Amino acid sequence: MLMNAARSTLLIIDIQSRLAPAIADGERVIEHCVWLAKLAERVGVPTVVTEHFPDKIGATVEALQAATGTARYVRKECFSAQAEGRLAGTAVEARPQVVVCGTEAHVCVLQTALELRWAGKEVFVVAEASASRDPANRDLAFARMRAHGIEIVAREMVAFEWLQRGGTQLFSAINREFIR
Amino acid sequence: MLMNAARSTLLIIDIQSRLAPAIADGERVIEHCVWLAKLAERVGVPTVVTEHFPDKIGATVEALQAATGTARYVRKECFSAQAEGRLAGTAVEARPQVVVCGTEAHVCVLQTALELRWAGKEVFVVAEASASRDPANRDLAFARMRAHGIEIVAREMVAFEWLQRGGTQLFSAINREFIR
Amino acid sequence: MLMNAARSTLLIIDIQSRLAPAIADGERVIEHCVWLAKLAERVGVPTVVTEHFPDKIGATVEALQAATGTARYVRKECFSAQAEGRLAGTAVEARPQVVVCGTEAHVCVLQTALELRWAGKEVFVVAEASASRDPANRDLAFARMRAHGIEIVAREMVAFEWLQRGGTQLFSAINREFIR
Amino acid sequence: MLMNAARSTLLIIDIQSRLAPAIADGERVIEHCVWLAKLAERVGVPTVVTEHFPDKIGATVEALQAATGTARYVRKECFSAQAEGRLAGTAVEARPQVVVCGTEAHVCVLQTALELRWAGKEVFVVAEASASRDPANRDLAFARMRAHGIEIVAREMVAFEWLQRGGTQLFSAINREFIR
Repeated sequence: MLMNAARSTLLIIDIQSRLAPAIADGERVIEHCVWLAKLAERVGVPTVVTEHFPDKIGATVEALQAATGTARYVRKECFSAQAEGRLAGTAVEARPQVVVCGTEAHVCVLQTALELRWAGKEVFVVAEASASRDPANRDLAFARMRAHGIEIVAREMVAFEWLQRGGTQLFSAINREFIR
Repeated sequence: MLMNAARSTLLIIDIQSRLAPAIADGERVIEHCVWLAKLAERVGVPTVVTEHFPDKIGATVEALQAATGTARYVRKECFSAQAEGRLAGTAVEARPQVVVCGTEAHVCVLQTALELRWAGKEVFVVAEASASRDPANRDLAFARMRAHGIEIVAREMVAFEWLQRGGTQLFSAINREFIR
Repeated sequence: MLMNAARSTLLIIDIQSRLAPAIADGERVIEHCVWLAKLAERVGVPTVVTEHFPDKIGATVEALQAATGTARYVRKECFSAQAEGRLAGTAVEARPQVVVCGTEAHVCVLQTALELRWAGKEVFVVAEASASRDPANRDLAFARMRAHGIEIVAREMVAFEWLQRGGTQLFSAINREFIR
Repeated sequence: MLMNAARSTLLIIDIQSRLAPAIADGERVIEHCVWLAKLAERVGVPTVVTEHFPDKIGATVEALQAATGTARYVRKECFSAQAEGRLAGTAVEARPQVVVCGTEAHVCVLQTALELRWAGKEVFVVAEASASRDPANRDLAFARMRAHGIEIVAREMVAFEWLQRGGTQLFSAINREFIR
C-alpha cells in the first residue's frame, strides 16, 4: 500500500547528542528528521522517538526535541527498539504502517525495521533522514532492508502519500512550508 | 510478458507547463515523451494523457499536445491517476499492459504505477521519459517500483518489443524515424 | 543451481559485422564472446550462434566464426531467438541451462533470455560479453532480467562453475589458457 | 532473522598466501577477516577456515592463522566448500546461520554461499571481508547472491547483531576493541 496518514506512525530512532556529531552529514540528517516530525504533526500522524542509553549517549538533540513536543519517548537497551516490548502500547503497535528514520542506519534502524517487518508491519525507511557514521554501511543497510520487503522512500514520498491529493487547504499549507 | 502493441496503452503523466521547467533535464524528458507518443501512434497503441490541476499547474506542454492529437486527456486531483476511477473507460482499463512515463517520477508516476500494479496490470515505466525535480528522488522511485514487480525499461525496449520482428515495412520506417 | 557443463548450452546472440562496430566497447565484447566459445569447446559444452537478418546486418564477425567451428548457426527474423521455434532441435532445447551473451543486451539478448526463462530454462547472462550501443540500455536490461530470476554472471563464474574443482588436468589447462 | 551468536558459525574461505597478494585491496580484506575471527572468538562463535589445495596455493596467511587458533581447518578440492561433505561434522553443519567471508568472492565464496543457502542455511556474506582480484567480479557475485536470499552485511552489523544489546561488560569491551 501507499503510505496513509490514518494508518501511519513516524518512528525516529536515536538522534542523540553524543552520536549525531559522528554521523556522515549528520546536520542534514537531523534537519530531515525535524522536517518529518513537523510534517507528521501537521497531518496528524503520531510520532514515537527512541533513545538508546540516554545517560551514556546523550538526550535527543534539541532541535528534534523542540519539534516532537507531543511525541512518545521510549528508552531502550537493545539495539532493536522492537525488542523487549519497548514499543508495546505506542502508536507503532496500534497502526499497521511505520515510517522509520534515524541513526545508525545499519544498527538500530536496521534491526528495528527488520523486526517490525517480521512482526507484520508495513515498514518505510526515509532515505535522507537515515544515516550511519560510514555511508557504505548505510547503503548496505538499505539493500538488506529492501531484500526483506522494506521500502526505502524519499521524504517527499511521505508527504505526497500522506496528503493523497492536491487542491486542499492542507495541501497548500504543506506545499508552501515543506516542499517549495 | 514482453510489451505487446495489441495489449499496451501508453500513459503519460503530468507533463505540464509550470512543472516541466523544474524537472531535472526537463527538456530531454519532454522529448522522450513526445518520441513515445509518436511511436505509439505509429504502431497503433492508444495513448492516455493526465493533467494534474491544469488551471494551477498549466496545460500539457505544447510539443506533447501536438504529438497526442488522438489521445484521451484525463484531469485528476489526486496524485495517483488510478484514484477516484479517473482511468475508468480509458484504454488503460481495457488493456492489460500499461507503459508509463512523465513527472514527477516519485510522486504521480510512482503512485499511479504502484496502484495500477496492485490492480493487476503489467506496468512498464520508461526510464528516460520519467523524472523528478531531484534525480535522487527518481532513483528511489525506480527502486521502489522494481520491488513491486514494475519493470523499468528503456524507450528502445518499448519500440523493439512492440515491433517484435525486423524485416517489415513498419520496422524499416520506425528504425529510420525513431532509432537511428 | 550453479552452472554445470553437462547441463549447459552457450548461446551467442547476433555478433554481426554491421552491428558490432556500433556497440559500446564492441571489440572487448567480441573478445569475451570468443573466450566463452573457446571455453565451451574445451569443456564440451555445445554452442548455438544466432544471426539476425545476416543479409542486412552482416555475418557473424570473423573472429567468432573461427572460434565456433562446431557450433550450430540459427537465423532469425524476430528479435527473440526463442520466437517461431528457431531454437527447436538445438542444444538450447535439449539442455536445462542456457549461458547467454551477445548484442544488443536490451533487445535481442533481453527478449531471448526472458522468453527462455519463461519457458522454464535456467538462464545466465554473461556481463562482460553482453552489450548495447548505449551502456545505459545494457544496465536497464541487466536489472530487468534480474527481476525475472535471470542471473547476471561474470565470465570467470562460468569457467569455475563448469569446472567445479581444481587439481585436474582440465583445470590446469584452462587456468593457464583462460584465467591467468 | 538477525544474526545470533548462539546460532552462528563464522566461515572464512581461502585466505591463502599465494592468492591474497592478487586480491584487490587484499591487505584490507585480510584485516577484516582477522577482525571477524577475533570478534567471533570474543563472543563465543565457532570459526571454520577452508584452504583450497594449500600445497599449491599456500597456507592460510599468518595473521589469520594467529587469530584462528581454536578454529577448525578444512581442506577442499572443489571450489564450493559445501561439496563432497567437507563441512560435515563442523559447526557449519550444526548451526543454522553461517557468516561467510574470504576470497574469491565470485568463485569459492559464491559457490559455497549459494550451496549453503540451497541446503537451508541462513547465509550472511560480509562485504568488506570478501573480495576478488577484479572488483567488478565481486560486485556481480554480491548481486547474484542477493538474488538467492543471501544477505550482504557490513562487519559492524555482525558485531551489533551478535551482541543484541548495549550496557553489558561484553558490549563495552567489544565497543572499545572493535568499533571505536
